[in-house]
Amino acid sequence: MNFLDKINDSSDKNNSLLCIGIDPINDKLPKHFRNTENGYFEFSKKIIDSTHDLVCAYKPQIAHFSSVGKEYELEKIINYIKTNYPDIPIILDAKRGDIGSTAEQYAKESFERYGVDAVTINPYLGFDSLKPFLDYKDKGIILLCRTSNPGAVNIQDLLVDGEPLYKRVASLIVNEWNYNNNCLAVVGATWPTQMKEIRDIAKNIVFLVPGVGTQGGSIKDLVINGKNEAGKGLIISSSRSILYASQDEFNFSDKARQAAKEIRDNINLYR
Amino acid sequence: MNFLDKINDSSDKNNSLLCIGIDPINDKLPKHFRNTENGYFEFSKKIIDSTHDLVCAYKPQIAHFSSVGKEYELEKIINYIKTNYPDIPIILDAKRGDIGSTAEQYAKESFERYGVDAVTINPYLGFDSLKPFLDYKDKGIILLCRTSNPGAVNIQDLLVDGEPLYKRVASLIVNEWNYNNNCLAVVGATWPTQMKEIRDIAKNIVFLVPGVGTQGGSIKDLVINGKNEAGKGLIISSSRSILYASQDEFNFSDKARQAAKEIRDNINLYR
Repeated sequence: MNFLDKINDSSDKNNSLLCIGIDPINDKLPKHFRNTENGYFEFSKKIIDSTHDLVCAYKPQIAHFSSVGKEYELEKIINYIKTNYPDIPIILDAKRGDIGSTAEQYAKESFERYGVDAVTINPYLGFDSLKPFLDYKDKGIILLCRTSNPGAVNIQDLLVDGEPLYKRVASLIVNEWNYNNNCLAVVGATWPTQMKEIRDIAKNIVFLVPGVGTQGGSIKDLVINGKNEAGKGLIISSSRSILYASQDEFNFSDKARQAAKEIRDNINLYR
Repeated sequence: MNFLDKINDSSDKNNSLLCIGIDPINDKLPKHFRNTENGYFEFSKKIIDSTHDLVCAYKPQIAHFSSVGKEYELEKIINYIKTNYPDIPIILDAKRGDIGSTAEQYAKESFERYGVDAVTINPYLGFDSLKPFLDYKDKGIILLCRTSNPGAVNIQDLLVDGEPLYKRVASLIVNEWNYNNNCLAVVGATWPTQMKEIRDIAKNIVFLVPGVGTQGGSIKDLVINGKNEAGKGLIISSSRSILYASQDEFNFSDKARQAAKEIRDNINLYR
């Protein structure tokens, strides 16, 4: 089954457009998980067990593991989801981008080493940097279009022939790069006006939407501006406001569930 | 000592602007290194031992290790260079780029976990994605400007107010992002005309120049167009044409040395 079908099914099953970002940071974990061999895995396992019926996907962010040499914990988390919740797709948030021969290695990292269903990619290096990913027809290739952060304006908003670069990237996705029907686009929740512009260009592209929660994006604005005609087309990601809803050893996973349920239900109000 | 001083010294000492990219690929190695626990390290060690007096830097490319779960070999290679050739700076080719809080994790990966001297960064996400790197004042922050690959034209050549995006990126580096005097720029050897344009904007910025060798960039054209007024300002990277000059078990490192010396000397003809 390809990624888009898989996420559509998990979204329908759990009545959810919510994706939980798995971004462990040692000092933010409940204390008993800190500075331990398998703390990132044990923490994430609890979060996953308490939220698996509320999400359409999980999205581990790789730098949180590679910064501290914990690729082995990332592997364990991915394998845990695949074994216990095989219907829930896994998105690796890696934002890779390199020339063709190196992009082959990065694609191998995502789809063979980790075996995830989708990965985020930076389009700055153009087509040959994307092709090794796009050639994995059943995987989701999620291209940065308009990101959620303040600095997005520095490059992505520059005017190309009178239109912002992010609109050109959206057009390239739709017209050039989606030949295997496996492209998605990252569009930040913090920019609802831009999201509407991109939806008008990319009517059938699914958006991965970071920026809800800690980053402050409005759920109402993003859903109204970003949903497609079927009230779908969105994978709305939240990480810190769910993972770190509580640091209490005994109820952190219940609080995470509560935070996830609130976001999921809030999203569903506007679909 | 900061990165720019360190590379200036190693460049002077070895009379070299050549940087060797360390990009091991199992099937391309001499046979006795393939499919072994430490083959990437043992191979790279031989290459380093036979070329250390010919280079200004080494540049391991991280995807070649992460694609096959060999971060431990990357760590060993970096530690080997630091221990045996401490004057030679190490550039991690990673092309990272993410929002501020995640960029902190990526900066930690490069500068704390691996402890390298410099790292390549993708500017598409703008200032807050760069700041956690730029704040490491003594490290080299090497920003993609105009890359060596064919797809570079798709985004980097788009006209912003009548000028290609890569020129805008060059201006941002010079005018906005170089406040700690630790920025460099990636400018591909395959585009000598564009290199001249970027040199005119960024007179005092050192360029990391990939694309010599297998990718086909002309050494003469790139040195003439890219050098600064002192006949320097370039770190010219070659990987495959040196590493894989021979696959012969007994003379691969001699052949690599010979290939490296030819490129170094060829570069020096035009400085």
